Amino acid sequence: MSQPQSDNLFTGIPEIIPQEIIEILLKAPGFYLERIISAGQATPMGQWYDQETHEWVVLLSGAAGLLFEGEAQVLVLRPGDYLLIPAHCRHRVEWTDPERRTVWLALQYQDSAV
Amino acid sequence: MSQPQSDNLFTGIPEIIPQEIIEILLKAPGFYLERIISAGQATPMGQWYDQETHEWVVLLSGAAGLLFEGEAQVLVLRPGDYLLIPAHCRHRVEWTDPERRTVWLALQYQDSAV
Repeated sequence: MSQPQSDNLFTGIPEIIPQEIIEILLKAPGFYLERIISAGQATPMGQWYDQETHEWVVLLSGAAGLLFEGEAQVLVLRPGDYLLIPAHCRHRVEWTDPERRTVWLALQYQDSAV
Repeated sequence: MSQPQSDNLFTGIPEIIPQEIIEILLKAPGFYLERIISAGQATPMGQWYDQETHEWVVLLSGAAGLLFEGEAQVLVLRPGDYLLIPAHCRHRVEWTDPERRTVWLALQYQDSAV
């Protein structure tokens, strides 16, 4: 067996990011793990995410504001902030940092852990 | 449904860490996700990890050196570095940063994704 190689979450990021970049880093039965890179993008006006999977997500660089349906207040995320978004919990990304790359790690999975 | 709350990977860390701190952040069928905090600890001399689970691990702060059995060279990990350690791939943590907290996120799972 050859030695496992490492890669880095903050490298391999293009200079120009016209839309969010989503890459699957790992996939196994019941879950997949994504790296998401945002550069100022937000969910289009009036749209909500309504996902089939539970999503455990951590913001690792940059910043973002999440809005959950029915809430008045945007939840601001800074590096290291993580949360669990249950399946079908409608939410949108109000904003991401326009000046720095926002790097997210998202674990999408089935079967309730909550 | 109340709004999901966020927590932070870099907070809630004690001043003094006599041994590594391992906390399960999330558990679902087939996987669990841990936060590990090291403060200069290493795997005891002559010992190897030989795990039943596959481990996808990312180092988020600090630094560490991993050694895989049969390899001469220590793999140095810096913030953002991640790798997949297959089940039963014998390895040890040669060192972790003695001056800064080393925070890891480890996804332990069953069923081969490799």
